[in-house]
Amino acid sequence: MERVENTLDREKLTRAMNGCIEWIREFFEENGKGCNAVLGISGGKDSSVVAALLVEALGRERVIGVLMPNGEQADIDMAKLLVNHLGIKYYVVNIKEAYDGIIHAFPEDLEMSKQTKINLAPRLRMSTVYAVSQSVNGRVANTCNLSEDWVGYSTRYGDSVGDFSPCSHFTVQEVKEIGRILGLPEVLIEKAPSDGLCGKTDEDNLGFTYAVLDKYIRTGEIDDEETKKLIDHKHKVNLFKLEVMPSYEPKWD
Amino acid sequence: MERVENTLDREKLTRAMNGCIEWIREFFEENGKGCNAVLGISGGKDSSVVAALLVEALGRERVIGVLMPNGEQADIDMAKLLVNHLGIKYYVVNIKEAYDGIIHAFPEDLEMSKQTKINLAPRLRMSTVYAVSQSVNGRVANTCNLSEDWVGYSTRYGDSVGDFSPCSHFTVQEVKEIGRILGLPEVLIEKAPSDGLCGKTDEDNLGFTYAVLDKYIRTGEIDDEETKKLIDHKHKVNLFKLEVMPSYEPKWD
Repeated sequence: MERVENTLDREKLTRAMNGCIEWIREFFEENGKGCNAVLGISGGKDSSVVAALLVEALGRERVIGVLMPNGEQADIDMAKLLVNHLGIKYYVVNIKEAYDGIIHAFPEDLEMSKQTKINLAPRLRMSTVYAVSQSVNGRVANTCNLSEDWVGYSTRYGDSVGDFSPCSHFTVQEVKEIGRILGLPEVLIEKAPSDGLCGKTDEDNLGFTYAVLDKYIRTGEIDDEETKKLIDHKHKVNLFKLEVMPSYEPKWD
Repeated sequence: MERVENTLDREKLTRAMNGCIEWIREFFEENGKGCNAVLGISGGKDSSVVAALLVEALGRERVIGVLMPNGEQADIDMAKLLVNHLGIKYYVVNIKEAYDGIIHAFPEDLEMSKQTKINLAPRLRMSTVYAVSQSVNGRVANTCNLSEDWVGYSTRYGDSVGDFSPCSHFTVQEVKEIGRILGLPEVLIEKAPSDGLCGKTDEDNLGFTYAVLDKYIRTGEIDDEETKKLIDHKHKVNLFKLEVMPSYEPKWD
């Protein structure tokens, strides 16, 4: 993992951003010439910035957003603000009926934990985004960033996957700055991210701020020893989420 | 990829199978000491054989099957035969309500192709198996085999994933033979696999038999040039399914 100064160098970041836009074009050239890019739009900074990058790379006609509230989504207006700002086509697919369908069919003698319910929604959203993508000749964009991935703050086979990932090597602060360079409304960039289910922000859940995490990722520097231990632990136990599942390979001797 | 003779050497295969059982034990030792193994049970040979291997490795008390019909499943008795034969705990979670929920919420102006519907079910099953797994302190077993993976006959982020994969380097014929060595009812081993949705068998869909494919994988030999081209093409265009999605890595120069 390369390290750069935490103080964002806007010029360097702009070059990296342009590299990303070029990379998206190449991905489509090689893996789906003329296909559309499809992504879930939550109204948060990550999906907003990825959508904006896709529009830069492919043009707005080839980018399709999927808004997937689970029943009522308090901040759905943010998602609509984004798709309208970019002028991209979008669909709304409410996952509530599917979500309730699983809960309803779940064994009565098995208690579904709060965390289980939290992870169910992103997996149903993945299933939905792929159904839309398959219907529009699409390729699914992943919207994770490096900071979240570093500590495993994503749902395996839910929001953690996709066909290609433009931002998973940019920290939260870098993603936000890219959003500013691309002229996104500041309200989309500065909105405190939350999973929309447990009522807490990501930073509440993690126990540290992204600013501290981002500095640690990029410089190795961190003031608080306890926070360092917490981050290192989360990093270590969540690395498997970024890898292909292990499989048994027989030796034929 | 190592190559062995197509004519199954039962002694070699038994050694490979024992290696697999040991590998499963090691996986749990390292990635979930005392955890349970959870897997979807379809009533076909693959989930049957993986379940039997898990029972050999961990004991039947630590293996939990999840039967996931989509409404009525004609061959659900086969799945029940398997769990009763092995004496493992199982749950039935009907995915129909969730499946219909997505279909119902899908944009009216977007036509969902037959293939899209076929791929939706395995993704909802993945979501369900993970919800069960999270509720029973589990680790999810993937049930793919080498022959299917070779030609990409699986749904990305549906049946193609899991936390660990015991049989994804065994061909169909090897999986069947392992089932026989472990004493599974022949009816479970010889059942023609199908996706349960489109009314065709896998071999109908693929356009060649697993016997021909398995021989080609293990020996490189194949009689029909057209079939060779078809297999090589499917192999090439589906390799991405077995890999981590590509991501953009900025160069910070």
